[in-house]
Amino acid sequence: MAAADHKIGWVAVDWGTTHLRATAVDNRGRVLAQRQSDDGMGRLEPGAFEAALVNLIGDWLDGESLPVICCGMVGSRQGWAEAPYRAVPCTPVGDVPVQAPARDPRLRVWIVPGIRQSTPPDVMRGEETQIAGFLSGAPGFDGVICLPGTHSKWAHISAGEIVSFRTFMTGELFEALSEHTVLRHSVDSSAIQDEPFLGAVDRVLSRPEMLAGDLFTLRAAHLLCDQDATASGSILSGTLIGAELAAARPYWLGQDVVIIGATGLSENYQKALAAQGVDARVVDGDEMTLAGLSMVMSELKETTH
Amino acid sequence: MAAADHKIGWVAVDWGTTHLRATAVDNRGRVLAQRQSDDGMGRLEPGAFEAALVNLIGDWLDGESLPVICCGMVGSRQGWAEAPYRAVPCTPVGDVPVQAPARDPRLRVWIVPGIRQSTPPDVMRGEETQIAGFLSGAPGFDGVICLPGTHSKWAHISAGEIVSFRTFMTGELFEALSEHTVLRHSVDSSAIQDEPFLGAVDRVLSRPEMLAGDLFTLRAAHLLCDQDATASGSILSGTLIGAELAAARPYWLGQDVVIIGATGLSENYQKALAAQGVDARVVDGDEMTLAGLSMVMSELKETTH
Repeated sequence: MAAADHKIGWVAVDWGTTHLRATAVDNRGRVLAQRQSDDGMGRLEPGAFEAALVNLIGDWLDGESLPVICCGMVGSRQGWAEAPYRAVPCTPVGDVPVQAPARDPRLRVWIVPGIRQSTPPDVMRGEETQIAGFLSGAPGFDGVICLPGTHSKWAHISAGEIVSFRTFMTGELFEALSEHTVLRHSVDSSAIQDEPFLGAVDRVLSRPEMLAGDLFTLRAAHLLCDQDATASGSILSGTLIGAELAAARPYWLGQDVVIIGATGLSENYQKALAAQGVDARVVDGDEMTLAGLSMVMSELKETTH
Repeated sequence: MAAADHKIGWVAVDWGTTHLRATAVDNRGRVLAQRQSDDGMGRLEPGAFEAALVNLIGDWLDGESLPVICCGMVGSRQGWAEAPYRAVPCTPVGDVPVQAPARDPRLRVWIVPGIRQSTPPDVMRGEETQIAGFLSGAPGFDGVICLPGTHSKWAHISAGEIVSFRTFMTGELFEALSEHTVLRHSVDSSAIQDEPFLGAVDRVLSRPEMLAGDLFTLRAAHLLCDQDATASGSILSGTLIGAELAAARPYWLGQDVVIIGATGLSENYQKALAAQGVDARVVDGDEMTLAGLSMVMSELKETTH
């Protein structure tokens, strides 16, 4: 292998509210290195993005101007540069990303725009890139993509476009309930037990109107019956994922469903859907982000050369 | 009026997780003074309760041993002394409260026990005293009492007993969502607008399965449509109170409902119930606590004299 093969061709950056993750890629699409830091959008002032990036990957930069393709909250109004939302129905990432101003001549930075929907109002930043990554390997896909997480997304995909989508605050709700309410004394979220988890999913799907009453029961069951905190955490997770599935039913019912996300969480969604008779495939989230950013990089090359 | 009329006969204490409120009462039942502090159960070590009380009302104590009747979380395992739960069905406060150890000879302290339920598991501490207070003025009441708050309670009352009850974490959920999630940027909870509030109540009651999808819509509507933060706060409140009403429907449907609580919040519940055709009465929460503690004090006098 020639030395030129190990030269960094471009950098893929996944830049969310709480994390900054950079991947060095060569011109043949091979990953050379990966680094991350806690310099998410949420902790950076508007002028601090370039310094945070250089701080993380400065030694990857040489004299030449290196392309950096970013996705996520870095493109929000509070980010490095606003990459205005594109409106559904639309392809996930469009043709040309938005260029962000960089003083360092060793950098040329682009940001993938997010997606918006008017009715009901909804937005995404970052997931569109994962969807693009998935579609680059499955161009004919017609179905539904679920992206579980802090703000889970469900997107209906047809003819290469995002037709509609919905966001559910499931992950953030779980965190708020298990850390900032009385449930913090009763809930352990470090592991999921299938039986209480699936029981709770089923209960909410069949009796969604009872949801509000099921939460304090976890606290009382701890006080009165010494209910195990892992079981309670599993029930809380099942209750909230079940509430998401109840509201997202028009998305998954009778559809071809793909789950893009982190392994453990994706598998919980897969189990919950399987109990409803839906056989969903799981695809790795980080891989899809990289695939999506690679697609944007390829199109950028075609445009600029 | 003779000087003896102004002598403190006993002290009523409402001691919750976040507050300590003491009322000096004369032997004719008249309120002489009221004081409160932030020395709630949550911030006190087990041995610190007596000092916190003396710190607040020390100058009310003279040489004689003054009866102090407490209700609330002060009777929990982490409180001054555990006042074990009584099980439903039962009268709200029973016959004799639990005596708490006090070193100061100027004090004799009693704590009203809480109530528990096995199926579904549930507990209350403090609300039983308010229910007793209400029943002392309406002994023949047969119906449902709603006590809205951090942990809202719904209790079915018949023949002077609490037959069953349920707790909903509505207030705490509102706080967790509006302070510890992305909604904190989009929600103002300082005032409630009737139209968005009642619209949200109605939506959850008619489509409870859509609840999980309605939360992030508040954030997106702020970003895309610049939706007013007070309207969003009203929708969030209506959504959570609506979810409580959906789960508590077996309690209020076709029942005589009394709401015991703080004025503003109680009125919101009253409006939400009125839209469902339920004409609920509102009764002041602090007054009911005092009435309940007064009843306990009277029975204690009869027992000890």
